[in-house]
Amino acid sequence: MAVRSPVVVIAPNSFKGSVSAIDAAAAIAAGVRRVWPRADLRLCPMADGGEGTLDAVLSAGGERRTARVSGAAGVPLDAAYGLIANDTAIIESAQVVGLIDAGATARPVETRSTRGLGELIRVLLDAGVRRFVVGLGGSSTNDGGAGLLSALGLALFDANAHSVEPTPAGLEALSRVDASALDARLAAARITILSDVDNPLCGKRGATAIFGPQKGVRPESVAMIDARLARFATLAEAAVGRRVKELPGAGAAGGLGFALLLAGGELRSGAEVVADLLGLDAALDNADWLITGEGHTDRQTLLGKAPLVAARHASAKGVPATLISGGVDRDALPELSRHFAGCHSIAFGPTSLEACVTDAAGLLADRAEQLARLFAAARR
Amino acid sequence: MAVRSPVVVIAPNSFKGSVSAIDAAAAIAAGVRRVWPRADLRLCPMADGGEGTLDAVLSAGGERRTARVSGAAGVPLDAAYGLIANDTAIIESAQVVGLIDAGATARPVETRSTRGLGELIRVLLDAGVRRFVVGLGGSSTNDGGAGLLSALGLALFDANAHSVEPTPAGLEALSRVDASALDARLAAARITILSDVDNPLCGKRGATAIFGPQKGVRPESVAMIDARLARFATLAEAAVGRRVKELPGAGAAGGLGFALLLAGGELRSGAEVVADLLGLDAALDNADWLITGEGHTDRQTLLGKAPLVAARHASAKGVPATLISGGVDRDALPELSRHFAGCHSIAFGPTSLEACVTDAAGLLADRAEQLARLFAAARR
Repeated sequence: MAVRSPVVVIAPNSFKGSVSAIDAAAAIAAGVRRVWPRADLRLCPMADGGEGTLDAVLSAGGERRTARVSGAAGVPLDAAYGLIANDTAIIESAQVVGLIDAGATARPVETRSTRGLGELIRVLLDAGVRRFVVGLGGSSTNDGGAGLLSALGLALFDANAHSVEPTPAGLEALSRVDASALDARLAAARITILSDVDNPLCGKRGATAIFGPQKGVRPESVAMIDARLARFATLAEAAVGRRVKELPGAGAAGGLGFALLLAGGELRSGAEVVADLLGLDAALDNADWLITGEGHTDRQTLLGKAPLVAARHASAKGVPATLISGGVDRDALPELSRHFAGCHSIAFGPTSLEACVTDAAGLLADRAEQLARLFAAARR
Repeated sequence: MAVRSPVVVIAPNSFKGSVSAIDAAAAIAAGVRRVWPRADLRLCPMADGGEGTLDAVLSAGGERRTARVSGAAGVPLDAAYGLIANDTAIIESAQVVGLIDAGATARPVETRSTRGLGELIRVLLDAGVRRFVVGLGGSSTNDGGAGLLSALGLALFDANAHSVEPTPAGLEALSRVDASALDARLAAARITILSDVDNPLCGKRGATAIFGPQKGVRPESVAMIDARLARFATLAEAAVGRRVKELPGAGAAGGLGFALLLAGGELRSGAEVVADLLGLDAALDNADWLITGEGHTDRQTLLGKAPLVAARHASAKGVPATLISGGVDRDALPELSRHFAGCHSIAFGPTSLEACVTDAAGLLADRAEQLARLFAAARR
């Protein structure tokens, strides 16, 4: 009854607030190996452009580096970024202007800026990098990307021709935008923007209205700040000669999407780009099974989240994809079942969210093992 | 990629306090059918000799009948039993002297008797039945089976040659036992006793010490009642000419085990006998997969509970067995994995016991479907 050990691609997203994608993949692999000690396990920890994207991409190779740039509140910090194939930089916005930076988020959102991201891109342009992959998500800023563009040479003036700060507060006085000093090397750069958000920059579905409050924008300030970003965007578009503020994703990361689109960037699904960078398709060659996972699964998963992207790539190669989740919304099962050969939970019975979060790695290993036992039995 | 629809044997135990084995099997079948609409599904709802045994056995055929006999407190009731192949009676003790009989359990345990079970056996002997399968478990009595033997003709006297009641209270005055009027037809009867309990009748591991308190025996009465049962047993053994009170299982169901052993019965694993009566082995012929289940799984499951018995029968036919449980004790997984091709829970994420109990059937169907999707994918 001996059957050859299978080839299993292990491509989970992070389990937010619990284990990283890398740790999740390692846990799943440990469980699978209990069933098939000699299985060919191909680990492709996934990400969607948000927190963890840098680590996930670097798990497949490349160099982790740091650069000293301004944090969201202007305090210098050593921001991590990745360099792969010597010509492509992986930038995770949250490493520079992240909500995780408690020092910066202690300051009012009106004073925070994405300047540091522009500084980082400039450093990389100086070093000859022309390809940028920028993960949005997890940012603490809502400056319309004015800081980023300003650091790259876009000049912002008030009515008296004095420079204004590229912050929501500073933009109050904005009167004129001059793009003549915008870094010319951007024209030759290829910027890939990773975001799953399709909001425009301004308006009811814009960055300030939808994501502002969770960054500290007070309800009574939403309209005012939205109007400042709208005016900044109109002036910047005219100066650069491109119209992007209505594009889906312009409202991602407090308007960073807008700024990067204006700089010539192209928006793509974060998980798709990560899959490409990790070589997921190559990993799926001759594979028997893909296991993916995430912290929580519902209909949102179907909107292009990492597990769905992994399942689609698997499907294209005829490889079945199984999902292991912290928790699955059963209402979504009929739709999920079109994509996954089984949606399973790490829970082994009635249990609390806290217990699942605390022991996610152990639970993942055990669940993966139990699923592998079934897979092995069915293959015989 | 079309593959023939599989043959799946569905043999769960009941999920105690939630769904019966029959309903559990139906729920699992509904889930599996979503994946393979034309699968050959063979439903074998299991039982271990306790509550639900009668229904499970009758699901494979036979007649459900009732007989008017005494309940544990002496109040007549219509007790259900089964008749299969016209010569074998299935008796579930709990149908006559069950803990579920609130009227009887309102009376002190010292006054309860298994007399009704003896009456039922007598009725069946009158009808020509010679083969009895008696499920223990779920009884409210602790009379050493004195009631059963008394109803079958064993005479109990006090020192003044007056009859004594076959109850823990009545046995206080027991002085002499006469077996001369014991129903002679028992000698030709084949009595199979279903129990997973291996306790002897008396002593530290005896019926009164171990199971008495949960039936209402007060801690201060344990030693006294245990002594009465010991004397009854010694006298009854001498009168009948058989020694069985030390045998494993004599202490099952408050000593019903003892009485049935004394009447010539043979103790067997409840789940094994149920598997035989259901024709589990025949159902496993040419099967691809067995799905079993139970309300809670831990090391106790490995001591011959229904899911383990189902898995063993499957293993003997080379059929993989997968377990779906209300909850699985992860510490037992290494041992469980020797028997099951995956141990899974009905939980789809963090959840309460109450939610699992309330929606067990829906959860079972969904989990079975998700496992079947994996099974199907692995078979391709």
